[in-house]
Amino acid sequence: MSLRTPYLMFIGDAADQLAAKTAQGVVDWRPEWCLGQFKLPNCNADLGLANMTLEEAAEAGAKTLVVGVANRGGIISEAWTATLVRAMELGMDIASGLHNRLRDTIAISDAAEQHSRSLFDVRHPTRHFSVASGVPRSGKRLLAVGTDCSLGKMYTTLALWKGMQERGMKSDFRATGQTGIFIAGDGVSVDAVVADFISGAVEEISPANDADHWDLIEGQGSLFHPSYAGVSLGLLHGAQATHLVMCHEPNREHMRGIPHQPLPSLEECIALNESCARLTSPEAKVIAMAFNTSKMNDQNASDCLKSHADKFGMPCVDPVRTGVDPILDIL
Amino acid sequence: MSLRTPYLMFIGDAADQLAAKTAQGVVDWRPEWCLGQFKLPNCNADLGLANMTLEEAAEAGAKTLVVGVANRGGIISEAWTATLVRAMELGMDIASGLHNRLRDTIAISDAAEQHSRSLFDVRHPTRHFSVASGVPRSGKRLLAVGTDCSLGKMYTTLALWKGMQERGMKSDFRATGQTGIFIAGDGVSVDAVVADFISGAVEEISPANDADHWDLIEGQGSLFHPSYAGVSLGLLHGAQATHLVMCHEPNREHMRGIPHQPLPSLEECIALNESCARLTSPEAKVIAMAFNTSKMNDQNASDCLKSHADKFGMPCVDPVRTGVDPILDIL
Repeated sequence: MSLRTPYLMFIGDAADQLAAKTAQGVVDWRPEWCLGQFKLPNCNADLGLANMTLEEAAEAGAKTLVVGVANRGGIISEAWTATLVRAMELGMDIASGLHNRLRDTIAISDAAEQHSRSLFDVRHPTRHFSVASGVPRSGKRLLAVGTDCSLGKMYTTLALWKGMQERGMKSDFRATGQTGIFIAGDGVSVDAVVADFISGAVEEISPANDADHWDLIEGQGSLFHPSYAGVSLGLLHGAQATHLVMCHEPNREHMRGIPHQPLPSLEECIALNESCARLTSPEAKVIAMAFNTSKMNDQNASDCLKSHADKFGMPCVDPVRTGVDPILDIL
Repeated sequence: MSLRTPYLMFIGDAADQLAAKTAQGVVDWRPEWCLGQFKLPNCNADLGLANMTLEEAAEAGAKTLVVGVANRGGIISEAWTATLVRAMELGMDIASGLHNRLRDTIAISDAAEQHSRSLFDVRHPTRHFSVASGVPRSGKRLLAVGTDCSLGKMYTTLALWKGMQERGMKSDFRATGQTGIFIAGDGVSVDAVVADFISGAVEEISPANDADHWDLIEGQGSLFHPSYAGVSLGLLHGAQATHLVMCHEPNREHMRGIPHQPLPSLEECIALNESCARLTSPEAKVIAMAFNTSKMNDQNASDCLKSHADKFGMPCVDPVRTGVDPILDIL
């Protein structure tokens, strides 16, 4: 899928700011694609964008309305239908990151057909992928891996991408989850791919490139997560990453959603990721670590980063607190 | 899915014996479920079963017609439609292991509806699976793992299951691929599950059981296969195997379908499988090896098994050539 830009960000009747997290991520990383926001009357979130009517957005050139809101159960609300249909009448495509499909709402699917508009359910891969070939390919690829889910892999990758853009380095961000897809305008939600094609999908979204070009690939899950490790391993093999960045949250007490499962040590997580990555990328190496220190005070965070940098002999940053320049300096 | 037995084995217009491989596997391991075979005029395979007309099979009590034949491209042939429709008229369900779906052929889907018959596309999971919990469960579970794909994991698991049945041990064979599903009458094709649910699907098909009950779980792929390792890791974590059997073909020159990729050593394959398995099953251990020595003469095969048994200190068998008694003896 390739989304047309710029976007009108639809945050509907978001119950709170957290419900608009996906939209906020897009605004943070692609402000130039976000023309404005559209809210319904009972919306409790705000993206800091201009409020626009659908007509104003169409006039300003909006090409896709992005449903960047999660409601309870992650489904498409009936209260949104009239807005989505009207946006299509005005020439916009619709893109959603929710679990159920836009086309399963008959009024939405009918309007898309009537107005020849596209519906993008970014969680649901629509392409047919091939089985991975494992054939080595040119270009540099960096993959964010982690000790667990949801600890900053996307954020880290995007921070590196933005830094490379600023330094004039050739790079692309390669999205593997729904928020990332809105930010990249393309990509595949790898956890929704049929299992046989995980690695093949990743090979396809990060193809061979110039020797000095960087693909910065969003990681998913962890090799140590009992629910999702298959996705992480397929991603690792398909990525053929030359460089790995290990992401970690020091304060986490157990694997996300699995109270009985402790986090792996950084040492064993680095060792297993490197050893598995080398199946398809013999030189793969963890070259830096990105910590999520959001639950620490400044002093503790600074101590944590310094002690790990000393112990592991590599740059250790918090992308939010310190930025990623020390990593960019060595790439 | 749960298939109704007994079966009428449909081998259609199989070009050669190999094209009826799936059907042959079912006949080999579940002869008591295979009432007879049905061929079209230009069939070049034979299962050694009685030839039956559809009417004779229905009369004899056949509950499911099993499409156990692969044609070029793995799709359902138009030449088969009349037979499948007639079988449904006579009260049989239809089960297929091919890639495309029975219901996508309109005449087949119409007949199923008209006669209230079930269509089983065993490659395509129809259940909704949960994300794996990773919670430890009771019972003993043995998983066949391997250095590569297609080197005897299903055959090894079935040989152990049959041996346990003969010894009066409580055991079930748990199928994870299409031929295995026909043999078990149930199961899930894990490589066709959505990636997020690989481990969850395996947890579901091998649930908690009596402390002295064995689930013998069919393995898939290899942690060292660049195309499919994600499936293998998800399967390994979901299985919570207490016992692993390593399957290997000594003469193989490269990973199946990947000419540039050498096979891993047995040492590293054992080490990685044990270390990953222990995430969800702390005592997991490779306790035996099953070799496919079909390309060796008797002397070489015997030498190979003996030298590996000495070197690794565990039973090494070829399930076809020597049987699996040495493994059963230690379980």
